[in-house]
Amino acid sequence: MSGVAPIQFWFDFISPYGYLASLRIDELAARHGRDADWHSLLVGVTVLRVMGMKPLMETPLKKDYLPREIARYTRRHGVVLRRSVTARAMNPLPCARAFTWLRTHASAHAKPFARAVFDAVWARGEDVVERVALLACAARSDTPAALIEDAIAAPDAGPLLRAEVQRAIEQGVFGSPFVLVDGEPFFGVDKFELIDEWLARGGW
Amino acid sequence: MSGVAPIQFWFDFISPYGYLASLRIDELAARHGRDADWHSLLVGVTVLRVMGMKPLMETPLKKDYLPREIARYTRRHGVVLRRSVTARAMNPLPCARAFTWLRTHASAHAKPFARAVFDAVWARGEDVVERVALLACAARSDTPAALIEDAIAAPDAGPLLRAEVQRAIEQGVFGSPFVLVDGEPFFGVDKFELIDEWLARGGW
Repeated sequence: MSGVAPIQFWFDFISPYGYLASLRIDELAARHGRDADWHSLLVGVTVLRVMGMKPLMETPLKKDYLPREIARYTRRHGVVLRRSVTARAMNPLPCARAFTWLRTHASAHAKPFARAVFDAVWARGEDVVERVALLACAARSDTPAALIEDAIAAPDAGPLLRAEVQRAIEQGVFGSPFVLVDGEPFFGVDKFELIDEWLARGGW
Repeated sequence: MSGVAPIQFWFDFISPYGYLASLRIDELAARHGRDADWHSLLVGVTVLRVMGMKPLMETPLKKDYLPREIARYTRRHGVVLRRSVTARAMNPLPCARAFTWLRTHASAHAKPFARAVFDAVWARGEDVVERVALLACAARSDTPAALIEDAIAAPDAGPLLRAEVQRAIEQGVFGSPFVLVDGEPFFGVDKFELIDEWLARGGW
């Protein structure tokens, strides 16, 4: 997969749509000889503030629609969510920080760890906030525990994540999932079929 | 097409996505032996107020993304828009009122008139606000001018539209386009392939 730029995959660990996209993004990219470069952002905490928007699950009408849309999607794709999409959101900072630190300092472990976090949060219904939960995700993804301990203690984990979120905003990324293919922006898991066509045709 | 409930197609005349959907909705419904029942709503004027949201084109990040998404869609579908999606929106009240009055009092003329309005606004780049523009749309859609004169003068045109918007909100409709298939809600023109599958399979 050399010589072709990876596609950028942006997600928030507490976004159900981000989770659903995470189950498909690597296969989608690989089908076209691409890698997917995973990036964590914080929609609720930072991006929505830039946009002047409330969280979707606090937005009248939309908050009733989204659970139906997600249920329809999961039935269609045979995915089972074990966390309510309407429950109060888990704090995404600890896992986003740990993931972003890993992708900088031990990048081979970043994606397996992120998959384990997504799986814990959405397929197991666990909160991944405390040290012990982060270490459980490390164990399940063959990430050395010492790396996670380092990530938790690292003074640069916060700044690294802030820089990622800033980079997202500078590139116009505002939601989860958000995919950039050679600069072309695609928002939402609904766009995955279109991304597939875009990659196959080389754009249009 | 008797015996099967029509699908509800909700749109705002000033929504480019509503226009793009209007070009496909009847063919989509007919493919499954359905009629599409067209309903005008006012997203910017009323629905967003209920949701506590700004117009999308005034929302940072999203306002830069949407024109790219629309341009990508129109290139793919071979549609040419002759109105900027970023320009200040036309006042949708006069055409929404006239259309809603027609669908109540002269329903056979409603859909052809709506198509003419959409065509004027988006394919011709005309404002359809003044009486003369509404009459031009009537002429292009073989709608008797007298009906449009009646619609403009009718004291019930405003209340009829307000009732429609209220009905939209009660059904959870909050955007343009929005499709209801036997109560199942689909938001956005991105959902049209999914609606096709939903109708073919009878849901899932």
